[in-house]
Amino acid sequence: MLKIAIVGASGYTGLELIRILHRHPEVAVTCLTSEQSAGKRISEVFPTLRGRCDIVLENLEPVRVAEKADIIFTALPHKAAMEVVPTFLKLGKKIIDLSADYRLSDPAVYGEWYMPHLNPENLKKAVYGLPEIRREMIKGAQLVANPGCYPTSIILALAPLLKYGLIDPSSIIADSASGATGAGRSAKVDSLYCEVNEGFRAYAIGGAHRHIPEIEQELSLLAGEPLKITFTPHLVPMDRGILSTVYASAEKTLSNETLATLYREFYAGEPFVRILPNGTLPSTAYVRGSNFCDIAATVDSRTGRIVLVSAIDNLVKGASGQAVQNMNLLCGFPETSGLEALAIFP
Amino acid sequence: MLKIAIVGASGYTGLELIRILHRHPEVAVTCLTSEQSAGKRISEVFPTLRGRCDIVLENLEPVRVAEKADIIFTALPHKAAMEVVPTFLKLGKKIIDLSADYRLSDPAVYGEWYMPHLNPENLKKAVYGLPEIRREMIKGAQLVANPGCYPTSIILALAPLLKYGLIDPSSIIADSASGATGAGRSAKVDSLYCEVNEGFRAYAIGGAHRHIPEIEQELSLLAGEPLKITFTPHLVPMDRGILSTVYASAEKTLSNETLATLYREFYAGEPFVRILPNGTLPSTAYVRGSNFCDIAATVDSRTGRIVLVSAIDNLVKGASGQAVQNMNLLCGFPETSGLEALAIFP
Amino acid sequence: MLKIAIVGASGYTGLELIRILHRHPEVAVTCLTSEQSAGKRISEVFPTLRGRCDIVLENLEPVRVAEKADIIFTALPHKAAMEVVPTFLKLGKKIIDLSADYRLSDPAVYGEWYMPHLNPENLKKAVYGLPEIRREMIKGAQLVANPGCYPTSIILALAPLLKYGLIDPSSIIADSASGATGAGRSAKVDSLYCEVNEGFRAYAIGGAHRHIPEIEQELSLLAGEPLKITFTPHLVPMDRGILSTVYASAEKTLSNETLATLYREFYAGEPFVRILPNGTLPSTAYVRGSNFCDIAATVDSRTGRIVLVSAIDNLVKGASGQAVQNMNLLCGFPETSGLEALAIFP
Amino acid sequence: MLKIAIVGASGYTGLELIRILHRHPEVAVTCLTSEQSAGKRISEVFPTLRGRCDIVLENLEPVRVAEKADIIFTALPHKAAMEVVPTFLKLGKKIIDLSADYRLSDPAVYGEWYMPHLNPENLKKAVYGLPEIRREMIKGAQLVANPGCYPTSIILALAPLLKYGLIDPSSIIADSASGATGAGRSAKVDSLYCEVNEGFRAYAIGGAHRHIPEIEQELSLLAGEPLKITFTPHLVPMDRGILSTVYASAEKTLSNETLATLYREFYAGEPFVRILPNGTLPSTAYVRGSNFCDIAATVDSRTGRIVLVSAIDNLVKGASGQAVQNMNLLCGFPETSGLEALAIFP
Repeated sequence: MLKIAIVGASGYTGLELIRILHRHPEVAVTCLTSEQSAGKRISEVFPTLRGRCDIVLENLEPVRVAEKADIIFTALPHKAAMEVVPTFLKLGKKIIDLSADYRLSDPAVYGEWYMPHLNPENLKKAVYGLPEIRREMIKGAQLVANPGCYPTSIILALAPLLKYGLIDPSSIIADSASGATGAGRSAKVDSLYCEVNEGFRAYAIGGAHRHIPEIEQELSLLAGEPLKITFTPHLVPMDRGILSTVYASAEKTLSNETLATLYREFYAGEPFVRILPNGTLPSTAYVRGSNFCDIAATVDSRTGRIVLVSAIDNLVKGASGQAVQNMNLLCGFPETSGLEALAIFP
Repeated sequence: MLKIAIVGASGYTGLELIRILHRHPEVAVTCLTSEQSAGKRISEVFPTLRGRCDIVLENLEPVRVAEKADIIFTALPHKAAMEVVPTFLKLGKKIIDLSADYRLSDPAVYGEWYMPHLNPENLKKAVYGLPEIRREMIKGAQLVANPGCYPTSIILALAPLLKYGLIDPSSIIADSASGATGAGRSAKVDSLYCEVNEGFRAYAIGGAHRHIPEIEQELSLLAGEPLKITFTPHLVPMDRGILSTVYASAEKTLSNETLATLYREFYAGEPFVRILPNGTLPSTAYVRGSNFCDIAATVDSRTGRIVLVSAIDNLVKGASGQAVQNMNLLCGFPETSGLEALAIFP
Repeated sequence: MLKIAIVGASGYTGLELIRILHRHPEVAVTCLTSEQSAGKRISEVFPTLRGRCDIVLENLEPVRVAEKADIIFTALPHKAAMEVVPTFLKLGKKIIDLSADYRLSDPAVYGEWYMPHLNPENLKKAVYGLPEIRREMIKGAQLVANPGCYPTSIILALAPLLKYGLIDPSSIIADSASGATGAGRSAKVDSLYCEVNEGFRAYAIGGAHRHIPEIEQELSLLAGEPLKITFTPHLVPMDRGILSTVYASAEKTLSNETLATLYREFYAGEPFVRILPNGTLPSTAYVRGSNFCDIAATVDSRTGRIVLVSAIDNLVKGASGQAVQNMNLLCGFPETSGLEALAIFP
Repeated sequence: MLKIAIVGASGYTGLELIRILHRHPEVAVTCLTSEQSAGKRISEVFPTLRGRCDIVLENLEPVRVAEKADIIFTALPHKAAMEVVPTFLKLGKKIIDLSADYRLSDPAVYGEWYMPHLNPENLKKAVYGLPEIRREMIKGAQLVANPGCYPTSIILALAPLLKYGLIDPSSIIADSASGATGAGRSAKVDSLYCEVNEGFRAYAIGGAHRHIPEIEQELSLLAGEPLKITFTPHLVPMDRGILSTVYASAEKTLSNETLATLYREFYAGEPFVRILPNGTLPSTAYVRGSNFCDIAATVDSRTGRIVLVSAIDNLVKGASGQAVQNMNLLCGFPETSGLEALAIFP
């Protein structure tokens, strides 16, 4: 059994890591940290865990954490992650970082969208952890930069089209919507039940969302040329799930059947990508609690555009599930270990 | 007091008409029809009305309905409307039709998206009832074709840009999301609480939704040239509201300030359109129960696109509220009569 | 037009007062205070108000507030209310206090459940503002203690049974459930969307909720003898509404018909109480946004208990609507002024 | 691997059985029936299953079903179950029946609450499948009557008090609330999203709910004397979960500590019952997707009543999870097999 530490365990992605790893046959969670709740049992913070995981939360002291664990998941805000990851690296630990800190290969881009990078020297060690795109590199990595939730849903939707050169790379518009867990667990008026419930809204429009550089970096690599996208995130009154509806101009005429075949081929053998048959569309409800990404591709023949729809659970394939998938690759476990549970519906 | 009949009163738009007209100083609801619930009191169908509106629902016999009313709202499915509207017209009644039957001026287009039109000869009598675009024509009409919910949100968002020629008309993509009242009140598995709740999904993608010809008809008129759009509707787990996020390529460089000024000028004096200041975005939660359309316009300078966001209550500005606004214009009442109530939040 | 100040306007009851008073023909809101948001427009805090009420929030300086208003609504937490009400009283203002500070006639009871009372000398001036029970006293009052939300739903449900001596006063159990607006608008983890959504829970069980003394005070007066109740509040994942299910042992055998008749007689002429016919039950959904209290009374003949169910909108009849009803009585306006709007459904 | 048939697989309890059994190491689902959807793949009905369980639904022909399975779960409405169970019994199959048909040992009681029993001769073969109360009998049974959802939550809450004679058996009031999956998956207006959402209501009050005889049967056995209860179910706008708040008069003075100790002792070693520490209360959110029943017991010393709160997931411990627990007992598997997954939160 490998020993696991989760740094930043009292947020929703931390809890989701515990939930998933609890059913993993090869690992045991041995250390949980939380600045706000240190000293409490994790099951006091999240009563779902009572009787199953009652570990006492501790303060984040990197060396002590490293002593207790073989593999470390950092579920921290940006900046906080790059303050501790170097220590973990030095101590030879394998790290899956769920923050944005190691996702952008160019520190200048990080600086433009976030802040000056504190640890640029380790950026080249980090592998962007989207297994469907970069499986072999992840296997050999010490540090995996776990992708953002929106990027996962958008990159998986677009990868086949860009790889095969079927769309105009300058025409991409990604319109996404996320459940409220995406905003995290901190006490803010904007995240109150009565402020979120029964409302639907856009935010960070006009090129303002920090996931844009990450999406563009990966899409540009797939396209083989730099590209820019328009991206609009929305907030949905539900707990979990991201649905992305992505638009691009087709470079040539394609039928829905051809498109579906092409997607099926591209993702053949992938355990967590499901290409839906024509006439069927994804819903976040059908992936809730699972590591699936469901994708449908449709041609709008009236306008020559391709419309893609992809759905993930933002806490699973969009965060903690993908992190465990990456851990499985890093450690040579079967890629689906701990991730076999079906989605929960309703 | 003018007398009002609501034909098809046991659906959500019927109820919403009753709710709004209840506070209108110049009219009284005198006749309600429902095929499914004839013989019951409307307050048995909708207990909100108990003690305030207890009218017995009757079968739809057009002549008898016409005898009881000066103005008739038809809140019927398409086809059912055009089966009775000719009778009402012949009997000299004023009609606000909430169905799609008289929205498309070209019967061939109606035939392509719906079915062969049964009453093409009355199409030219009908005025498309979007007061912000066609106020004067509505005033003189006998038959108003009340706009669809998605079209209202999209046309109001785009009108200034098209009118002023600021965007490429071939570049328009409208991504909209609606609450569950949009699916009506009929008993279908897909509309069950547990099927809708905690899920977000697209439907009718790739140019399949019947609101497309209506949107394109009106946008083409505004642009002065025929145009086609890509439109994707989504279903949000909430009762009311439509939010449309609309994308188009700018024909020239504009600042957010210029854009806001331009929108403010275009809609100056409009009682129900609110242009939000830069940095502020609409939410369906902020228009719930009211007749407002809130609009924000933003430039994505990285990609040269303009991103518009508009929010309405689909049952009010997207249906019954707009219908009452049209009635007010038809009858020479103050345009805001019955529609002064503030949105209800939370 | 009388001038109205709302002290503590940036909470949900403050907003609801503005919403209701906006449609009141005899008053105008002239002053709004908020400690947290002073200097902002109220429409920046609550965008529903944009273009309709854009008053700038000010700090709470009692004398200045009193200069601007004839009638003052205090929508403050307990303690904060009794710190300013004495000044308003001295300056001859009429006050409707939505806090708990003047609801308990005995300062010792207040001391036991809250804290030592700071203004016991004014307690006898205060009238407990439940119009259905104490209409005439309210008319002559200068200070109305607006009832709590749970108490309103429970007292109105039980009043006829206690008045007529039909139940054992020691047998009362009130099981209530409230929407999330009941927890207010402050930023707390427990009130986050993801913590409240998709969960149902009890809180403050075993005689711990501060509404108990208020309920017992009023029920004891109705019964003509001191009584104690068991009360359990629950939190429902919805915005608005309180439903109370109340149990008591019948002192004699009654039929459902007799019970309904008795309730109908007791509440005859009441504009805001609706007694439902047998076989029909209240839902919070049917009173949302309205000032109604819907009540159903049923005999459980198997066990000799009477089961009452009552539903209100906690922000309207449970707070701001009732406050306006009290203002109407205080000022000699028609009791229903501003409160005629139908419930909004769905 | 034992082979499993699920009869009535296209409802929510059928889907939940598939979800749970998918992770069970000792069984394989081999046969699914559905009258409405025969011929379709189950993954067309429930897209969560795509790629993981794509069995084609067949019509219910008992002999053919029996040929394909060792163990049969009947997830049918009452009456439909007792029409096929006799055949399965004759063919020597083990059956876990999720309907009400074999829960009441006295056919006369069944006749009073449902309809004349069609298969009274097999009633004595059936064991009421609440493992915490009747584990040993279940182990040897051929036919398990899986308990109702409300009964599970109420019986587990009360069992210790009745067993130890600590309450007046005539004083029990159970006030319960269920998520909308409890109403099943059939297309009814009352179950539509917009009819359920944002409303809380009671139903079947005054001794009318069919779970009453089942609850009374089991509580009477525990008490050692016949007893009657008052029971009120409510509908909560959420998918899953039942919370029961149960009231009874204490026969002697007890502290909260004593009560908690007593509960902990009574349920010592139970894998799926968690007794919460004083000051902590259950929420349906904390058991969602899991087989736990969380219980808190509190003394209301002001009134001499004990207040119990219990929470389960109605589809898991209230139906399909408990059915799998019963299967494990029947088959000699570890009792927790397939049921180890943690609750999913949020």
